[in-house]
Parts: sequence; structure tokens; C-alpha cells
Amino acid sequence: MFEFDITASDGRARTGVFPTPHGELHTPVFAPVGTQATVKTLTPEHLKEMRASLVLSNTYHLYLRPGDELVREMGGLHEFMQWPKPMLTDSGGFQVFSLSDTRKVDEDGVTFKSHIDGSTHRFTPERSIQIQNNLGADIIMAFDECADPNNPAYIKKAMERTHRWAERSLKAHSRADQALFGIVQGGVDPDLRAQSAEFISSLPFPGIAIGGLSVGETKEEMLRTLDVVTPLLPENKPRYLMGVGTPEDLINGVLRGVDIFDCVLPTRLARHHAAFSPEGRLNLMNAAYARDKRPIDETCDCYTCRTFTRGYLRHLIVAKELLAGTLISIHNLRALIRLMEQIRAYIAEGTFTQRAPELLRVWHGNAQRKPTHVSGATA
Amino acid sequence: MFEFDITASDGRARTGVFPTPHGELHTPVFAPVGTQATVKTLTPEHLKEMRASLVLSNTYHLYLRPGDELVREMGGLHEFMQWPKPMLTDSGGFQVFSLSDTRKVDEDGVTFKSHIDGSTHRFTPERSIQIQNNLGADIIMAFDECADPNNPAYIKKAMERTHRWAERSLKAHSRADQALFGIVQGGVDPDLRAQSAEFISSLPFPGIAIGGLSVGETKEEMLRTLDVVTPLLPENKPRYLMGVGTPEDLINGVLRGVDIFDCVLPTRLARHHAAFSPEGRLNLMNAAYARDKRPIDETCDCYTCRTFTRGYLRHLIVAKELLAGTLISIHNLRALIRLMEQIRAYIAEGTFTQRAPELLRVWHGNAQRKPTHVSGATA
Repeated sequence: MFEFDITASDGRARTGVFPTPHGELHTPVFAPVGTQATVKTLTPEHLKEMRASLVLSNTYHLYLRPGDELVREMGGLHEFMQWPKPMLTDSGGFQVFSLSDTRKVDEDGVTFKSHIDGSTHRFTPERSIQIQNNLGADIIMAFDECADPNNPAYIKKAMERTHRWAERSLKAHSRADQALFGIVQGGVDPDLRAQSAEFISSLPFPGIAIGGLSVGETKEEMLRTLDVVTPLLPENKPRYLMGVGTPEDLINGVLRGVDIFDCVLPTRLARHHAAFSPEGRLNLMNAAYARDKRPIDETCDCYTCRTFTRGYLRHLIVAKELLAGTLISIHNLRALIRLMEQIRAYIAEGTFTQRAPELLRVWHGNAQRKPTHVSGATA
Repeated sequence: MFEFDITASDGRARTGVFPTPHGELHTPVFAPVGTQATVKTLTPEHLKEMRASLVLSNTYHLYLRPGDELVREMGGLHEFMQWPKPMLTDSGGFQVFSLSDTRKVDEDGVTFKSHIDGSTHRFTPERSIQIQNNLGADIIMAFDECADPNNPAYIKKAMERTHRWAERSLKAHSRADQALFGIVQGGVDPDLRAQSAEFISSLPFPGIAIGGLSVGETKEEMLRTLDVVTPLLPENKPRYLMGVGTPEDLINGVLRGVDIFDCVLPTRLARHHAAFSPEGRLNLMNAAYARDKRPIDETCDCYTCRTFTRGYLRHLIVAKELLAGTLISIHNLRALIRLMEQIRAYIAEGTFTQRAPELLRVWHGNAQRKPTHVSGATA
């Protein structure tokens, strides 16, 4: 279990198979985010139909509501939300730092107030792992500290603590049917990132995540950081770029050897009427679409594009019908999943590096970046 | 087209087949309400899976938004919302009287202000039919005046005007592929109801609706009115009880010879966490369900009951996830559609009258009535 098999490569990009108790993960892969044990407004049937293969859920949210003990009693996260394929939970660390009202970090862990009711809670590496053991995802994360990238003096301290917490997370982990990934931190400082990549690589994690990106740094800083980190990671372990991103970010990430991505962007944009398309990001509330009989994207095979016109979607938006968010979410997620299918095929035939500039050109109009990892906190 | 074929009967209850351009309607039938060209939060795939056969949409709402001309340009309502089976539109009259901000009725029609933006509009029988011709449903309604049941002095006047408007609606109707139904009014006054039933029956409508019920009268008044009206209607035309109702209302209506029902109750209740069940109406937000591994109704075959626990639905509600409304809507609609399937089978085997008391007992706990037709206005 959890032995990553690289099946093809093209430059630094590679395809692989990562076996989990709930099926094989074919990488590179994009994971829809189901913050509160549901990908917002979608049923598991919708996710299967769009060929989603990995769903992420948030430990911070599930710990607070409905509680990890309850999820365990209900048979674990897969059974609770009826998602039969691979799942991933984060450690809760990111949300504690981005979402909770107040928090106090010490060497042992972090005390924070719930964003829901202000009640006080405490996470430590051991507690985070215990919660994730209760939730029962196939891939779980070491507890880390995601420091503010605008506070460089603090980045080093947070990184070193993240390293100590990584060792404690490994020790606390008790379920052989869950793959515990370590997390590389270090802000956008190349030396710290290199140091972190080497340290985390030295520990017996079956996969390695790159955290602390897409939190406000520029696109150039993100790519430069990936250029420092991925060459230092072991070839034979999957690499997960947390909370990223746009179609362009996925292409750029795969070019630099990333295997796994997640982001709330497709579902969040959908609820704000924005759809990914090769024409650029469409604002479907625009009056220009009122009588438009075309689907969002004529090349797309999703349920929404096979079934509904832009005119109908625009009507649902103007009439404030929630179905609009559902239908656009289906499209936006399928657009990224389909992009990854395409990328896997290109890597397999050895043409990805050569085709990447054209792919980047097609999807460029969708590339405006926001601090999407932060939004991940509330999905 | 539009010749109603009665296939079995049991007391005053009957099963029948009503052919339409979009397929045969097997009655008695319950129609989900898709106020704004969508049954709230559900895709057409959900409706097909629950075996919905007739969907109602509201002329008042579609006229205001997106506009009936736009719907016609987009290929009509079936094409616009991608519902391939029979559809019904009301005349807009009821919403004008229940929902618009101000209105002035005269002999020719009614002037009203939009509840959306306060703009002034005018409906006449001719205009309502023209709008419904543009929308293109299989079954459309004569324009009527639904008078306040608490103003008996006015009921007679409104009924007589409804009769004159029925004749004008017939004259204005131009599409042979749409069945125009007349509407019986007369409040809860038995003499007026009898007079209206006889007058509307004398006109060449292929089907007859009973309007002005479920608008605040008692359950006894509703049943007494049905007892007066249905025996006076021609046997060979389908009878549609507008805006009704609860599981108990459907059973009582079929017992009195009603063939078609619609109501927003199942979807509206769902969005307020209430689910139909043989145990009575369940409030799924209740903490008692937090760890309940049972489905809403163990005897139900809907997607929600086949897939999810009460505990998961309760989590979605508490976490304010919109998927809760979707999943409970699927169940509540399927519960009524399944009840009608059961009733059709009982009528066919001649046991419905005999089994009705038991059915009423099973569903009694769901029977609390609200002025549901009024809610129909906003679905």
C-alpha cells in the first residue's frame, strides 16, 4: 500500500499510480474540496459522473462540526458522506491560522477559538493525527504551522517548529490504512524552502505536500519556490501542492513535477456565477448571455454543458435559483478534472512539455489568482 | 390528443391516461412545482429518477423573469429547462392576487405591480393565454380571479367574472398542442361552487381545475367543497385540484375523484429541514438524529433514502450546507409520487376505497395544513 508507481514522465512532469484502500489514484490529479463532508451543492453522484477520483475534506471544520468522534461512530468519512473513492484530509493547521478568531501558538501546539461559536479548542500534532485517524481519510497530513508570508522573520521559526511537529505527527500516527504526508514550509525564501524540502524528505512519509503557497505571494514567487522544492524531493513519492489553483497553476505545477492539487476555486467561483472556459472566465450573470443558446464550453463533456444553455444558466442566476451554483460547479470541477486527464494523456505520449505553452495560452484568461488557499478555509 | 381515457375506477376514485405532446400522463398524479423554470435545487435528472411525470411552472414568475418572449425564442419551456415530459403552467391569476404589491381588477383584466421591482403590468385573459402559448406547456389554464375566501360578498362577483374570463380564454387560445383547462371558483359556498362547476363543465375545456382551495379555509371546508364539485364535473375529463397538498390531502382528493395535484409543500418543507415519513413529519435538525444511522424512511426507494443517514442530513442542516435542501426535496417529492403510484395500483386492483383509511392513518402525522397554495406563489 502507498507505494507510488511512476508510469511515464516528460521533463519534470510525470504520471503515476498511488494505491489507497479506496482505489488507485491516477496522478496528476485535481481534488474537489468538500470542506464540511460535502462538495458544496453536489451529490456524490455528480462527483462520480464528472470522474472525480479524490475528494478533500477539512479537519478543522469536521472537528468542530459534527465532531470527529461522531464521524467515526457513523463509520468514518467515506461512509458518512457516501464517497467510496480516495479521500484526503488536511491537518487543520491551516484553518486554525487563517480562520479561527484568536490563536496562541506554543511549542506544544495551538490554542484557538472556534469561528462558529467562539469556544476555545487546542490542536497539537498528536491531536490532529488522532482526529484524522477518527475521520479515516486515505491520505492525511502532518500538523504544520503556515506562517504569514509577509513576516519573513517568523517564517524560519515556524518552519523549524513544523519540522518538529512533523516528527511528532509521524510518531502519533497509528493507522496503517492511512498515508500520512509531511509538509514542506519555508515561505518564499529559497534557502528555507530547500532546507525544509530536505528535512521532510528525510522522514519516512509516503508522500510530501508543499504548503504555504497560494497564500498571497505572487505567481512568480510560487513558481520559483516550486523550482527550488520539487527537485529536492524523492522521485518515488507523490507531491501535493496544497490549495492550488487555477487552470494555469495546475499546468505550471505539473510542469514542475507536482502530482496532486486541490482548490475551492472552481466551486467558489461557481457560486459567484463565474465559469472556466477557453474564452476566459465567463461571468454568466452578464446580460449578453440572456439569449445565448451555446453551452458554457462547446468542447466540454460535463452534464451542464451537455444539457443547458448559457441563457438558462443566466436566468437561474438572475432569478436567484441555487441550481445555478450546482450546475456551474459541475462544469468548473469537470473542466479541471478534464484538463488533468488531458495532461496525463500528453505525459503518457511524451508531448506535454511541448504542448504546455499552447495549454497555458488556452487557459490564460482564467488565470487571475486570488489567495485561494485562504478561501479554502471556508470553501 | 387530450382525450382522457379512464382505465379503472373504485368508488369515485379513478385511474386514467391523458395523452400530451410530451407523453402520456398517468393519473392520479402529483406534479412538483418548478416556479421559475426549475424545481428548486434539483436537476431534471433528479426529477426523472424520482419518476416525476408532470412539472408545473408559474406564468406570473416566468412572464416577469426571464420573460415569455425570451422563453419562446429559446425554444419554449421544455427546451429551456430541459424537461422532456409533460408540463403545466398556471394562468398567473393566482400570483397576481396573492403576490404582487398592488393590483386593480376591472372587467377587462388586472393591473398589478411586480413584486420584484415595482414596475406596472397588466394581465387580461387574452394576455395570459398569449404568454402561456409562448411558454408552450402541454396543459395551460384559463385566467381566473381567486377571491379572498374571507370576503363572501365578493366571491360571487369574482366567480361570475371568472366565468366570463373562461370564455374569453377559450377564444384567445390558439395552439392545438396545448390543452386549456377551465377553473371552477366560488369560495366555500356550496351553491356558488355548484353553479361554477356546471358553468365551467358546459364549456369545451379538455380538463377542469378546481381553484381557490388551500387558501386558508379549513380542511373540512375543502373536502365539503370537493364533495359538491366533483360529482358535477364530466366523468371523461381530468380534474386538477390546484395547489394541494399534503399526503393526506392527496388521498382525500383522489377519494373524491381528483386526478391531478400540485404543491410547493414538499420542496418548501425540505428547505426548512422537514421530511415526510410514516412516523410523521420529521424535523431533521433535531439533535436526536445526530447519530441516527437510519434513512428518513426505511420503506422509501428515493436516492436520499437509499444513500444517506438521518445523521448525515442533520449534519448538513446544522452546517448550513445547501445539499440538505436538495436531498430532502428528493425524498419529499418521491414520497408523494410513490404515494400516487401506490394509489394507482390500489385503484387498478379495486382496493383503494377499502385501503384509504389505513393510508390516511399512516400519513396522518404529515397532515398539518398551511395555506400552501399561497406559498405556491413563491414556491
